[in-house]
Amino acid sequence: MLAREIAEEYPIVDVDSDALEAARIMAERGLPGIVVCHGSPPRPVAVLPGARVIGAIIPRYVQDDPSLARVLDERDAETSLRQLRGRTVRDLLDEHREEIPVADGGDQVMEIAALMARLRTPLVAVVEGEELLGVITVARLLELILPPA
Amino acid sequence: MLAREIAEEYPIVDVDSDALEAARIMAERGLPGIVVCHGSPPRPVAVLPGARVIGAIIPRYVQDDPSLARVLDERDAETSLRQLRGRTVRDLLDEHREEIPVADGGDQVMEIAALMARLRTPLVAVVEGEELLGVITVARLLELILPPA
Repeated sequence: MLAREIAEEYPIVDVDSDALEAARIMAERGLPGIVVCHGSPPRPVAVLPGARVIGAIIPRYVQDDPSLARVLDERDAETSLRQLRGRTVRDLLDEHREEIPVADGGDQVMEIAALMARLRTPLVAVVEGEELLGVITVARLLELILPPA
Repeated sequence: MLAREIAEEYPIVDVDSDALEAARIMAERGLPGIVVCHGSPPRPVAVLPGARVIGAIIPRYVQDDPSLARVLDERDAETSLRQLRGRTVRDLLDEHREEIPVADGGDQVMEIAALMARLRTPLVAVVEGEELLGVITVARLLELILPPA
């Protein structure tokens, strides 16, 4: 089976889009991260992890001293809004750490599996020519390669 | 809001259980990883990433030379079964890399957020006394701390 036959839809955001909007999509869709694209047609460039968005909301000195976090109030919506307002997805990305693995539509399932295993990644983007076809998750891949129960 | 109020159910497996069974649960529930527990009552010790299971199925020399993966047939269910048969979840774990962050039921939402940001993790286990109450995902946390749209 080929990558193009099993690629699934997954939310994407542009690298220059609003970081708060990207965070809302993750919250609404229950996602641990979101695929970041660039250009037209959109080409995948990274995965923005939800934890990175939280890292942009929680000041560094609070991360380093969790006891300080007790005094922050999660209902103070203004705090998180202030931290994210005016920032783009690009501003939050750590480009070295968050590159997304890209497979070709013509790759075999076991090639994708080898890629996931080597890079220890739960998500691979599938591209054909200029077009993003979708993603393959590790759960979908396991479904394909595991023997029937 | 406190961790115990927002912890959600999440599948768990025992560290001494069958690795193939753990892989099947991830495939069926569409999960990127599974929480690994030990003892009774179960205490969380790790997260087994789906990519690690795939790493146990795909031989190392194939991971290192993806062109070899083209010759493996994903429908050869026996191959993956053979690689996982008789192995436990513990056999697959890389204990240094896959430790699960644990929060206390009485921790505040912003303390959990600080923990996730610092450790860059999408999942935190919530424990109270000896009891695992559930997990908090990064998506659920974003839902709580983001301002209304």
